[in-house]
Amino acid sequence: MEKIVFIQTGGTIDKDYPHTTKGWAFEFGEPATNRILEKLNPSFEYEVITAFQKDSLEINDEDRSKLVALIHELSCSKIIITHGTDTMKETAEALSVIQDKLIVITGAMRPERFTNSDAAVNVGMAIGAASLLDKGIYIAMHGVLAKHDMIKRNMETGKYYL
Amino acid sequence: MEKIVFIQTGGTIDKDYPHTTKGWAFEFGEPATNRILEKLNPSFEYEVITAFQKDSLEINDEDRSKLVALIHELSCSKIIITHGTDTMKETAEALSVIQDKLIVITGAMRPERFTNSDAAVNVGMAIGAASLLDKGIYIAMHGVLAKHDMIKRNMETGKYYL
Amino acid sequence: MEKIVFIQTGGTIDKDYPHTTKGWAFEFGEPATNRILEKLNPSFEYEVITAFQKDSLEINDEDRSKLVALIHELSCSKIIITHGTDTMKETAEALSVIQDKLIVITGAMRPERFTNSDAAVNVGMAIGAASLLDKGIYIAMHGVLAKHDMIKRNMETGKYYL
Amino acid sequence: MEKIVFIQTGGTIDKDYPHTTKGWAFEFGEPATNRILEKLNPSFEYEVITAFQKDSLEINDEDRSKLVALIHELSCSKIIITHGTDTMKETAEALSVIQDKLIVITGAMRPERFTNSDAAVNVGMAIGAASLLDKGIYIAMHGVLAKHDMIKRNMETGKYYL
Repeated sequence: MEKIVFIQTGGTIDKDYPHTTKGWAFEFGEPATNRILEKLNPSFEYEVITAFQKDSLEINDEDRSKLVALIHELSCSKIIITHGTDTMKETAEALSVIQDKLIVITGAMRPERFTNSDAAVNVGMAIGAASLLDKGIYIAMHGVLAKHDMIKRNMETGKYYL
Repeated sequence: MEKIVFIQTGGTIDKDYPHTTKGWAFEFGEPATNRILEKLNPSFEYEVITAFQKDSLEINDEDRSKLVALIHELSCSKIIITHGTDTMKETAEALSVIQDKLIVITGAMRPERFTNSDAAVNVGMAIGAASLLDKGIYIAMHGVLAKHDMIKRNMETGKYYL
Repeated sequence: MEKIVFIQTGGTIDKDYPHTTKGWAFEFGEPATNRILEKLNPSFEYEVITAFQKDSLEINDEDRSKLVALIHELSCSKIIITHGTDTMKETAEALSVIQDKLIVITGAMRPERFTNSDAAVNVGMAIGAASLLDKGIYIAMHGVLAKHDMIKRNMETGKYYL
Repeated sequence: MEKIVFIQTGGTIDKDYPHTTKGWAFEFGEPATNRILEKLNPSFEYEVITAFQKDSLEINDEDRSKLVALIHELSCSKIIITHGTDTMKETAEALSVIQDKLIVITGAMRPERFTNSDAAVNVGMAIGAASLLDKGIYIAMHGVLAKHDMIKRNMETGKYYL
């Protein structure tokens, strides 16, 4: 089985809690995929790298260009990107210039650190896609795994659907 | 998106702990998929049913025939079976008489009740398969999702691989 | 054993994650003590009530007066307050006018929803105090359970100590 | 604050799951207190040692004598023992020859590895006792922390109570 590269870009999935005083907000921690893959103990080879750590509303065109360049440079053709849930489709659109690799964008509605997080299921869906597919830009959220231009989002509830 | 039916058959994924005195062993609890799907809050319709609750070494020919009959009766064509890890391939073989449905067999190396369980990732892989495939008998374990007769198991480590 | 009343006032322990779009910050959820007590399955009678839901830096004199009045009205004499970690000592000071009850203030450095939270251990310490003590204002954090005017806090690390 | 020594003796709290094939039963893993104390990040000094790893129905007179000898040798006077739930009172009785130390026996109804375990709350109660008490043999379970000869157990439900 081919190697998979996991790319951290920030988003809810990686939000952690600062350990100090007067801490209001969450902060980004190490990639949640590290903890998920440790539980999985997978039979495939993998690498986890960080592109940037941003809430997805703050990801700009420059970040997306950087991400495209980063993926172009990878010799590996199976890519899973963890990403904030608010601009997955925008990032997918920007990545659609890459036509010879499989890229699955996933994330979580609640941080992977939460006991009731959806992170592990979502990353599982993305790994399933990497087993079955060779190319294309996909999004995996809310139990739906589909080509990025086929998936829709309910802006009221935040849920992705077909 | 089509409805998915999850079938519980027992196995490590569903092992729970008895709450009484002098309890040595684990016992089977309600389907772990219920708890995983609650976290996922999926956009697809689903149903969780129980075929039986057995350690997979104890599943016999009669059980497997019962499972085949149960699936034949379902109007739904996307099936995810949670199953003990020791005889997934035997059950898949028995199910291969069903040619018009997608069946993904998954499970876990550690009970879903465990904080370090692989259950959610594995069920995620199976759900990913249900998004992409229409028919065939698949196994999803250790980050590998493949046709049941393509996947192998290392009998020393218990790991499935391609 | 006497009944224990748990009072929610907000703070890190009860921070949860909003399920909608464009959510940056956390929000306060139902009292974390409910989930902890469900796991404990305790032999004592208890009630969980909410005084207010605030980050402890935002608790003001009026809130503290309200809390004093609320506790005066309770017929129960064993009180455990979950509270933000930044002003536990200020609240304890305000509560020290109550001389005939046991009050233990506790909380968490990471939300109870986190897999690596200290919430359950801290609430356990407070329950231990309720088993052993009859009156006084105590703080339970970082493995230290002591009279509120005996416990100190390292403002660099946020750690309570003796 | 004085140092606390945590002694592992086995029991439900430390039950883990074997990672290999054909594994029916659980096995004893490293002390659960290590994981609980990592979450707590305590302000007290501590050490975690293993006396033995047994289901408490299998602990015999020789084991209990060994435990008494082990504790006599410790320079530390605050001891927390994690123990199976079925013979806590028998072990407490055997330890009652030690009159100059505080010993709290605790454990769990579900393994600490379980997401719905009571382990952290129980260990929290024991740590609370170590903050407040200097000597005596105590049991901490089901939200009750009391001298070992005061606590009772409902043999039907397994619950300790006063």
